[in-house]
Amino acid sequence: MNSETHHSSVAAQAPDHGLIDRLASRLGVQGLLTDAGDKAPFEASARHGRGIARAVVRPASAEELAWVVQELVGADASFVVQGAATGLVGAATPSGSGTQWVLSTQRLRDRLEIDPVNRSAVVAAGYRLSDVNRAAAEHGLTFPIDLGADPSIGGMAATNTGGSRLIRYGGVRENVLAIAGVLANPPGARVGSTRGLRKNNTGLDWTQLMTGTFGAFGVVTHATLKLHPVQRQTAAALVAVDSAEVAMEILCSFEDALGEFVSAFEGMSGSALTAAVEHLPGVSAPFPVAPPYAVLLEVSSAVSKASGLDLESILMGWLETQIERPGMLDAVVDKPERLWRIRHAISESVQALGKLVAFDVSVSRSRFAAFRACSVELIAAEVASALVCDFGHLGDGGVHLNIVVAPETSVDAIVRLRSKLYQVVVEEFDGSFSAEHGVGPYNQAFYRCFTDQPTRALAGALHAQLDPQGRLGNVRLD
Amino acid sequence: MNSETHHSSVAAQAPDHGLIDRLASRLGVQGLLTDAGDKAPFEASARHGRGIARAVVRPASAEELAWVVQELVGADASFVVQGAATGLVGAATPSGSGTQWVLSTQRLRDRLEIDPVNRSAVVAAGYRLSDVNRAAAEHGLTFPIDLGADPSIGGMAATNTGGSRLIRYGGVRENVLAIAGVLANPPGARVGSTRGLRKNNTGLDWTQLMTGTFGAFGVVTHATLKLHPVQRQTAAALVAVDSAEVAMEILCSFEDALGEFVSAFEGMSGSALTAAVEHLPGVSAPFPVAPPYAVLLEVSSAVSKASGLDLESILMGWLETQIERPGMLDAVVDKPERLWRIRHAISESVQALGKLVAFDVSVSRSRFAAFRACSVELIAAEVASALVCDFGHLGDGGVHLNIVVAPETSVDAIVRLRSKLYQVVVEEFDGSFSAEHGVGPYNQAFYRCFTDQPTRALAGALHAQLDPQGRLGNVRLD
Repeated sequence: MNSETHHSSVAAQAPDHGLIDRLASRLGVQGLLTDAGDKAPFEASARHGRGIARAVVRPASAEELAWVVQELVGADASFVVQGAATGLVGAATPSGSGTQWVLSTQRLRDRLEIDPVNRSAVVAAGYRLSDVNRAAAEHGLTFPIDLGADPSIGGMAATNTGGSRLIRYGGVRENVLAIAGVLANPPGARVGSTRGLRKNNTGLDWTQLMTGTFGAFGVVTHATLKLHPVQRQTAAALVAVDSAEVAMEILCSFEDALGEFVSAFEGMSGSALTAAVEHLPGVSAPFPVAPPYAVLLEVSSAVSKASGLDLESILMGWLETQIERPGMLDAVVDKPERLWRIRHAISESVQALGKLVAFDVSVSRSRFAAFRACSVELIAAEVASALVCDFGHLGDGGVHLNIVVAPETSVDAIVRLRSKLYQVVVEEFDGSFSAEHGVGPYNQAFYRCFTDQPTRALAGALHAQLDPQGRLGNVRLD
Repeated sequence: MNSETHHSSVAAQAPDHGLIDRLASRLGVQGLLTDAGDKAPFEASARHGRGIARAVVRPASAEELAWVVQELVGADASFVVQGAATGLVGAATPSGSGTQWVLSTQRLRDRLEIDPVNRSAVVAAGYRLSDVNRAAAEHGLTFPIDLGADPSIGGMAATNTGGSRLIRYGGVRENVLAIAGVLANPPGARVGSTRGLRKNNTGLDWTQLMTGTFGAFGVVTHATLKLHPVQRQTAAALVAVDSAEVAMEILCSFEDALGEFVSAFEGMSGSALTAAVEHLPGVSAPFPVAPPYAVLLEVSSAVSKASGLDLESILMGWLETQIERPGMLDAVVDKPERLWRIRHAISESVQALGKLVAFDVSVSRSRFAAFRACSVELIAAEVASALVCDFGHLGDGGVHLNIVVAPETSVDAIVRLRSKLYQVVVEEFDGSFSAEHGVGPYNQAFYRCFTDQPTRALAGALHAQLDPQGRLGNVRLD
């Protein structure tokens, strides 16, 4: 369907004409986008197709946003909240019906306040992770959630993003002190706060409810974030091993010996490593022969070398204790940014190899090696052509089990593989079918399949209380 | 009222006689306590008076507990869940009516499983913090929530306890991977899980709902906890300063220079320090003259000295950079356990001085000094005899604002002071009236006073869903 045609036809008989006028009059040209060309960027999902927005509304303050929600609800309009649209499950993409509005937080940038004494920041939803880190760096501070993308802070909170350094700092949930938001019911009600309290034990907490519920229960307008001292030294190594089992043994030794210095432990299959190295111009293979499995491990510290702490020599000292370990094949200590360049190239390089099928799953670390072996077997049995290029946050038991399949592989075969693999991870390995990407229209069917009745009933009670007409977002948790 | 007389009179006409028989028959003598003498220990609150239990029921497994809840709800009985009864707001104490049952988790000790590869532990609610740490230590691990008391794990989860090392590790919320529990509605329904997943981003989470809601929405049966490597070296200093302002400046420098090593930053007024020193046999004053304010600061590391890291010398090096700071009066580096002995003696020693009035409040760290000055002034104006012996977790903005008042101080004066002080902390300083102790019958009136309508409405919807007859616990969050 041509979305321009679609838009005109809807507009002609739209019952919300008065609404468009009121929004345009208060928010101005920047605040309301109705032309197909202007709307187009807001209709694209980072990974899963496109939708059609009735219109895009972009309030520039929490007051405006609250008013917009009141107007939308009053006009019986349904809407989806969108930040930087970097999410991978479609939770911020409007549906294909053409009736859903996009409430964009792009212009919601009224506060970015660093409090250096409290080591915290109050951030409006529309700022991006990189904006926060630029402002925090001026005070020797950082918001240490490390991701491939540069999402909006509102999106990060709603998605509870994790990333590569969760092993050291935790994810969003562990680093958000408060969330302020707006409800669909009572329409436009302001809830939560921007208070920077590290201890506040007074019952039901909007912060927790709005974090990791994908916008289902309200709109995040501001988040108050814990900041951490910037890292002043980092050392990293790439270690080749003959199996994921050995990688987990090394993880235990690494954490035991290097404790609070541990800041990343990223696993990658030999095929993922090879794909990245071949994809990157001017990068040579770190090992003479591609190993079955490799680990990028990193230590870092906010304490400077001048204080007498030399992390690289501590890392080298520990690596020497590992070199005789059975199954440990090789190790390269290099500049961290060179090793991370390889790690960060995996996703794109695997995609370049052909038709990508991606899974974002996790298990307990103690079951990781067994799960990986089992899933590799399952994939081979279901799709004979598949090349498994898995990589991920091994220190957290998370794995992006990305595979490349022959172009002629049928959709049915992929659907069958997806179902079986999720079933194995959840039912046999007590794991998660969405480790860090969250739940959206893309995987909502699996949410229904794997979520127990009391949880869905409770979510239903919350939907009923906070959004009785079901106008908010495109994720239902009941 | 004599509780023995009371019990007999209730029992004579009790409509729950069949229930008593059924419970006794399935749970045995250890599982059901109905004699006044046996019940007495379960009727006492750690700080706020006593209640009267209809009976005490002590299931020894989650299955038994679920069955007990079903039986209690079926017999229209109301009940309060109790762990080790170390809480300070009365949330685990039965009411005085004599009709409320105590559901004790004391015997719920069916699982204490350490998973060293996953660095986690599955723990039944009835185990205590010290039990977990004893078991974890065998694997070089620890559950690092450091408290004055030795609470049950179920109580810690329900209360979301914080403590002295939250600045480094976070509190319970940041260290609980999963909670399994039992609901009052549907009666006896099992919810949640014991999965040790660090990343699991699949929507509404029982873990978050059961943590820090004081048993209002269900009974915690098991918690899956993150463990951390044990600390292999620790260094500490006691620093005398002329004001809380200077203490906060030192905190900023301390964190900036010593980063991830920082494990505690505890403040105490000169009067609290003096009280502790005078109370402890064989301890001499650390400073020639008691300073207006002092800070116990601690660094620690899981990395051994053998690796080339010497924390004491790093701490000494940093302290030398501070000695010229205006307002920094003196500093003593000593064995950490000797300094902590003083810090831990404060609470008891202040209590020994006379009539204690205690507040557990918090503010943003950047407003701490101003709040402290304001509260000292308020206290002096309201109760002229008051000696302020405040101490607490300065690194988290938390303070136990304990004061000693003349014995003849009227209850009215204390009630007035309490109201005014909470109002100042919440309304003028955007702080919390219960930083870490939580909400119970003791402070529920203040909860009502300071909690906004949407939050209470949402809690009401949860009560209605999870406990429509109001039989669970003695805390209402609506």
